[in-house]
Amino acid sequence: MKYDTITPINLEGESSVKTYKVAIMGATGAVGQQMKVQLEKRNFPAGEILFLASSRSAGQEIEFKGKTYIVQEAVPESFEGVDIALFSAGGSISEKFAPEAVKRGAVVIDNTSAFRMDPEVPLVVPEVNKKDMRLHNGIISNPNCSTIQMVCALQPLKEQFGLSKVVVSTYQAVSGAGIGAINELKDQAADFDNAKQADASVLPVKSADKHYPIAFNAIPQIDVFADNGYTLEEMKMINETKKIMHDDKLSVAATCVRLPVVTGHSESVYVELEGAPSVEEVKQAIAEAAGVELMDDPSQQLYPMPLMAEGLDEVFVGRIRQDPDNPQGFHLWVVSDNLVKGAALNSVQIAESLIEEKIV
Amino acid sequence: MKYDTITPINLEGESSVKTYKVAIMGATGAVGQQMKVQLEKRNFPAGEILFLASSRSAGQEIEFKGKTYIVQEAVPESFEGVDIALFSAGGSISEKFAPEAVKRGAVVIDNTSAFRMDPEVPLVVPEVNKKDMRLHNGIISNPNCSTIQMVCALQPLKEQFGLSKVVVSTYQAVSGAGIGAINELKDQAADFDNAKQADASVLPVKSADKHYPIAFNAIPQIDVFADNGYTLEEMKMINETKKIMHDDKLSVAATCVRLPVVTGHSESVYVELEGAPSVEEVKQAIAEAAGVELMDDPSQQLYPMPLMAEGLDEVFVGRIRQDPDNPQGFHLWVVSDNLVKGAALNSVQIAESLIEEKIV
Repeated sequence: MKYDTITPINLEGESSVKTYKVAIMGATGAVGQQMKVQLEKRNFPAGEILFLASSRSAGQEIEFKGKTYIVQEAVPESFEGVDIALFSAGGSISEKFAPEAVKRGAVVIDNTSAFRMDPEVPLVVPEVNKKDMRLHNGIISNPNCSTIQMVCALQPLKEQFGLSKVVVSTYQAVSGAGIGAINELKDQAADFDNAKQADASVLPVKSADKHYPIAFNAIPQIDVFADNGYTLEEMKMINETKKIMHDDKLSVAATCVRLPVVTGHSESVYVELEGAPSVEEVKQAIAEAAGVELMDDPSQQLYPMPLMAEGLDEVFVGRIRQDPDNPQGFHLWVVSDNLVKGAALNSVQIAESLIEEKIV
Repeated sequence: MKYDTITPINLEGESSVKTYKVAIMGATGAVGQQMKVQLEKRNFPAGEILFLASSRSAGQEIEFKGKTYIVQEAVPESFEGVDIALFSAGGSISEKFAPEAVKRGAVVIDNTSAFRMDPEVPLVVPEVNKKDMRLHNGIISNPNCSTIQMVCALQPLKEQFGLSKVVVSTYQAVSGAGIGAINELKDQAADFDNAKQADASVLPVKSADKHYPIAFNAIPQIDVFADNGYTLEEMKMINETKKIMHDDKLSVAATCVRLPVVTGHSESVYVELEGAPSVEEVKQAIAEAAGVELMDDPSQQLYPMPLMAEGLDEVFVGRIRQDPDNPQGFHLWVVSDNLVKGAALNSVQIAESLIEEKIV
């Protein structure tokens, strides 16, 4: 189904409609820029807007709906009068400033991992668990990019057939690691003959001891390692999926891999359902799901690919097929733009849902 | 364990050791060239060698152990007196010429899919099912590249802990699709800014209606589609794994994806074992397995990557970890050079095993 869970609110000709003071914290980053784009594109009722960043980025100019704004250095007082604050400036910035924004009456929609697993903080993908927003104490977390697109595809299967197990392997784009990672891929890709000796200083993790070339390679490490041998990215997929879907018994097994793709995460998702529907029934469930688009016709070589998903809103699902060895087992290939639905769009949708549900 | 299942046979100082007349069919292709390299490197007892190809490639020169050979056009009579014929020139060539070679007394080691699922033809990875060679009727098939590296990692787990289910997602290099695919990736990668509009005429399948750029992309199609929605590459992994491991009840679920990697296939393999060993026990089993090298230390960011596996003999395994939701579930990340162990090396090892087991 085309992306339409939360119809963008259209203010034209509705002069009496309430507007909101919105702040974007981390306005100059890859996700912050995309947040601005989504607010404009969806005509969000932002009566006032504030672009905030660290002192390093303060002073930059940002165009929004034909007007030029100057990026301000964030201080606690910046959030006075703000109704909705979209945060995407790193976990430590969220830890420092989100409570300050909440203290001043804002609802914070936080795109970092800082509060995601806090039992007091709702972790929301509107298509899946919009109702959880009602329990917020000022902060609502936006899940990790790789989790968001997966749960959009899993939710209709859970609702219609029951879901017992998920085994996911990801194919993740470098833009999730920021603009520095994109530039590094670009430089490395231009020197095909020296791929093994390419300079690398960003991936897999900027602060890590070792860096590896990403061009013509696949790196099975995203984020740092936990003590159990999993990366934090893998643990996010496991824990966030259970929290969002309200199912601690759901078995989630995840391997996360970084690829030489600029933008657009792909996921090979194997599910075990409680029922044993036909492939057609599974395709139908996906086709009807909010925010998800079925793209699946092998006879036409039609399936989603990251290069084609860039800049689009939907979660695309294809390659749906039944396990010949297990009638309850199905494969899905799930692709979405990690900066759009995986980050900025989901945050703006949470903001729209807050208005729709009269929470702000 | 370092690659040593089948110690290369060393003829130096052994003037009385028997030698064999060897033919390489498809000598000018990517795998054929690598077969020649392996025969040289492993000092295979080839008393005579013959390089065969289609009329298009006949006449080219090939250096072998310091001598220059002219590639001959293959005709049925080429195989007179040949003891061992290594085939890698496409399925239809194998169908036409393998019976001719067998008729003339050669044992054919075929690297195409032509005979792999024929119940009369052994499908062999020496580390796993060397004994099956004894049942040959002139032809021994070399499995698909993505299958070979996976079964090398699975076999020690099956032997020590029992194996009930495999869910694999592959990350496959373009060299599996030939030199044309490598050149296409190189050209596309050089033009970062036009990735979406890049010219494509080789991948995912040369003869298919539609072609997609591979640079900065991930294509979830390798080979053509079967009626059940699976690609032939996926069906190969499913069916060949069961045949090689002699286990029709083993559940194998596969998704195969082509990546912008030149050489080296990676596989995210999730297994369910019959027992519930510790992670250390699984690592130990992998470390001791023939042809497999454990490369697994998260504290040192040590794990296999395709860019580093290029040109090496081993199947590298890392990222071994237990499923927190299932003590019988384990993840493996398996990487190997698809042209070496995935094709040419495995074929030459089969030839070595034939000698070792006194079958030729």
